[in-house]
Amino acid sequence: MPERARSIWGWGWADRFPDEDARRDLVEKAGALLAFPNLALLPLPALDRIVLPPPRIEAPPDLAAIVRSDAPERASHTYGRSYRDIVRGFRGDFSRAPDLVAIPSSEDDIARVLEWCAKANAAVIPFGGGTSVVGGVEPEVPARFSGVLSLDMRGMDRVLDVDPISRLARIQAGATGPRLETALAEHGFTLRHYPQSFEFSTLGGWIATRAGGHFATLYTHIDELVASLRMIAPSGRFETRTLPASGAGPSADRLAIGSEGTLGVITEATMRVQARPLHRAKANVDFDRFEDGVEAARAIAQSGLHPSNCRLLDDREAMLFGVAFEKKSVLLLGFESNDHALDAWIDRAIAIAVAAGGRCPEGKKTIGPDAVRGERGTAAELWRSAFLEAPYLQSTLVSLGVVVDTFETACTWTRFPSLHREIIERVRAAMKRACGTGRISCRFTHVYPDGPAPYYTFLAPARLGAELEQWAEIKAAASEALMAHGATITHHHAVGRVHRPWYAREVPPLFLDALGAVKRTLDPHGMMNPGALIAG
Amino acid sequence: MPERARSIWGWGWADRFPDEDARRDLVEKAGALLAFPNLALLPLPALDRIVLPPPRIEAPPDLAAIVRSDAPERASHTYGRSYRDIVRGFRGDFSRAPDLVAIPSSEDDIARVLEWCAKANAAVIPFGGGTSVVGGVEPEVPARFSGVLSLDMRGMDRVLDVDPISRLARIQAGATGPRLETALAEHGFTLRHYPQSFEFSTLGGWIATRAGGHFATLYTHIDELVASLRMIAPSGRFETRTLPASGAGPSADRLAIGSEGTLGVITEATMRVQARPLHRAKANVDFDRFEDGVEAARAIAQSGLHPSNCRLLDDREAMLFGVAFEKKSVLLLGFESNDHALDAWIDRAIAIAVAAGGRCPEGKKTIGPDAVRGERGTAAELWRSAFLEAPYLQSTLVSLGVVVDTFETACTWTRFPSLHREIIERVRAAMKRACGTGRISCRFTHVYPDGPAPYYTFLAPARLGAELEQWAEIKAAASEALMAHGATITHHHAVGRVHRPWYAREVPPLFLDALGAVKRTLDPHGMMNPGALIAG
Repeated sequence: MPERARSIWGWGWADRFPDEDARRDLVEKAGALLAFPNLALLPLPALDRIVLPPPRIEAPPDLAAIVRSDAPERASHTYGRSYRDIVRGFRGDFSRAPDLVAIPSSEDDIARVLEWCAKANAAVIPFGGGTSVVGGVEPEVPARFSGVLSLDMRGMDRVLDVDPISRLARIQAGATGPRLETALAEHGFTLRHYPQSFEFSTLGGWIATRAGGHFATLYTHIDELVASLRMIAPSGRFETRTLPASGAGPSADRLAIGSEGTLGVITEATMRVQARPLHRAKANVDFDRFEDGVEAARAIAQSGLHPSNCRLLDDREAMLFGVAFEKKSVLLLGFESNDHALDAWIDRAIAIAVAAGGRCPEGKKTIGPDAVRGERGTAAELWRSAFLEAPYLQSTLVSLGVVVDTFETACTWTRFPSLHREIIERVRAAMKRACGTGRISCRFTHVYPDGPAPYYTFLAPARLGAELEQWAEIKAAASEALMAHGATITHHHAVGRVHRPWYAREVPPLFLDALGAVKRTLDPHGMMNPGALIAG
Repeated sequence: MPERARSIWGWGWADRFPDEDARRDLVEKAGALLAFPNLALLPLPALDRIVLPPPRIEAPPDLAAIVRSDAPERASHTYGRSYRDIVRGFRGDFSRAPDLVAIPSSEDDIARVLEWCAKANAAVIPFGGGTSVVGGVEPEVPARFSGVLSLDMRGMDRVLDVDPISRLARIQAGATGPRLETALAEHGFTLRHYPQSFEFSTLGGWIATRAGGHFATLYTHIDELVASLRMIAPSGRFETRTLPASGAGPSADRLAIGSEGTLGVITEATMRVQARPLHRAKANVDFDRFEDGVEAARAIAQSGLHPSNCRLLDDREAMLFGVAFEKKSVLLLGFESNDHALDAWIDRAIAIAVAAGGRCPEGKKTIGPDAVRGERGTAAELWRSAFLEAPYLQSTLVSLGVVVDTFETACTWTRFPSLHREIIERVRAAMKRACGTGRISCRFTHVYPDGPAPYYTFLAPARLGAELEQWAEIKAAASEALMAHGATITHHHAVGRVHRPWYAREVPPLFLDALGAVKRTLDPHGMMNPGALIAG
């Protein structure tokens, strides 16, 4: 079976990129919706004209079976999938490709690769699905290194063991979302972790970047799903004990979770899995005023009902996602359970939302085991939804000359109104300066008792050749607003190279010193993903 | 108002210690229940005969207002409240009292004290409620130090700020449970964190030791209630940002949480508080077989119902706590909410427990807002319950010649049956060897989808003068069983000095190296609580 090809520059499968007719169609639609001037079908990058610099380092014979240096491998490990990455790939610029790509199939392979890289003075960039939107897998490393090796975990992608009693699964770090869900489904389980990158991103990448799942409350961050993990650091092996909880010292897991490849290579983890949902309940609640929707989301987040979905869309997002055809905000409510019908839960959540000024014209929709079972394997599967299509749309819009990106954060409920006002104001001003015009919209992806995780999408007309400068101006405006209002630079996209300056301002300087000391202990040569998270 | 005096050797308030008649009564009852030989009213320690060595260091004049060296202060900072501590205090042995006790009232005070201690080569032991049961506040430090200063946080015990929108409260580390709950109640909130030491232990102590609350599922560990914290380390200030969640790098909070005073002094934290419960539902379910109770607890922990109580007591515990008068295990189920009636929740939980082989002869009991409000300020208040009386009973039993202690852990559901068997076997054998006989009982304090947190109590007859050796043999047997079966050395009692050897075997060696590197960064002189958690 020939392997389905990934796009070398854009999101996802190459065969999913729209043809000329579809792109022309989108130019019209987007033109009408956004009113941007000059949308056009830009010429697609010609892959046969991509030129890579020759590799600066060469693997020794005993690693020849693991390490590759062919152009397609190197090109496909040059970027993640941020707006910056897509633009540079679309321009055909792969000048900073890694010198080598290693594809280990065991922890021993990894240890041998790291050992050789230390000797060869090569930087090592752990690579999962390559979907980083923050420059997390980009071979931008300090000049002191003689070369860069991208360490692709795709050869270690199995579910090794499932414990149905404790609902735990030992899974290799290179397993993608569909791969591990398929294997878990055979046992009736699911990890139930659906980041937007689900189709391509990997367990190891999720853990390394503290990924946020699709669900609104409770066990949605990957952090909470890790029962133990294994990591190969240049200094040795790091393996934690599989425990439901422990009060013994600072959490060893939490030091590795979020380390973004800077401390070592996460090789596997024992994950908390769940029985597949058999009951679902949902409702859409409309609000004339976004602020009322915010209040409803807050009240539900503080109610102890723990919805699986509590996604507030502002009027622009609601139209974009096709859940509204007039100017209104919409709160998408959902509950899921393997164990019980959810009427008491959804009824109360709707009542709270209505009390906050919402309308629920269509009422609740509940389905039980038979209907839920019927959904499986059909187009209704969660990861096939519009949510997971959005990254494809982004790549397409780039090919039409649109600056299009998202950013996300979390803050307290108390700080949200002023943060939101200032984000809208600053980003609009930056788009006006950089692009002449632009659109920004907001939704809540997650809600907590103490605050929401707002997610912003912005679109503006690109000026060919100046896109990266346009984007940088908008991104800086957004990030400065986050810093000024006590928000975090990232709720689930990670730090990588893009967010590093703001991350350094967000955390205590002494914590950065401590992290540096940890890094020197686990990675004495400083060769693990240098430049990501902390200064390399 | 004269200050109510704490017992110098035993648990809690001195005036709560039973008189001769009550102790004689208990000798009879305990004798009948336990069938131990030789229970007797041992003579209480004569406080006027306690001799402290003279302080080896003296505070400089500019710290005179903060630092004390009188005998009562020094004696009351010599021990925590483990069995070992109570026995040594009961013997009148205060030979290892700290040289000085500092009582700061500001972060600046703390910084000044730390600065002077560094110069004076003194070790510093942060001290909250002094309720450690693992030697966490004991001045047992390496010989290289010229003296020991106990840093008592009781002068920093205020709730500084309450944010009712985001339900956050900024609280100083020295606030005890009753102190902070009283202040929060004025705003209609509660931290809802009730460790057994609640009456005396402090927020800072809870955070430093990763305390577990009273509740069975969800937000019970102090870890999850911390939105941000502040710590004064010898190297400087460490202050994290107040956020509902973040995906930016490894969690800085989680590095300080569980650091047990070895990295710095936690001075305050912004905590996630909750609206006070207005609805409660509860039920007791009986099981002839403990194993069926375990299955019920597991099914409920995996159901997504999130009970506030899911406490399984084995037959001995059930009799001890007076919830059963015949040989049976009992599962105590409870739900609490500020927002909604809980019938759907408790009904389903009972159904699950009954399906696992339980009987619920009295059915559920639910109460609504009026009844819950009526409970307030009465003897029904949670922290006045038998649960919080247990430590008083332990001290009394020590005064009658009983070796009595508890230990606790967490493990997967899969490992629990063999772990449990081996613990019972090994501890019984150790009690037989060391004491001739003994009793051990078990309850679950917390349940997780992937495993329970079992809590064991053991009682055995003491041999006067040899109690610490008897205890050490039993404790080692229990701890070795935990290590052999992949459990943790502590689910919520912390590591301190007592658990350190097993902790070192539980976590990855590389993590200990990393922790050492962090300590050298935050505490270059190694003077913060040396000997606790990691080798000093």
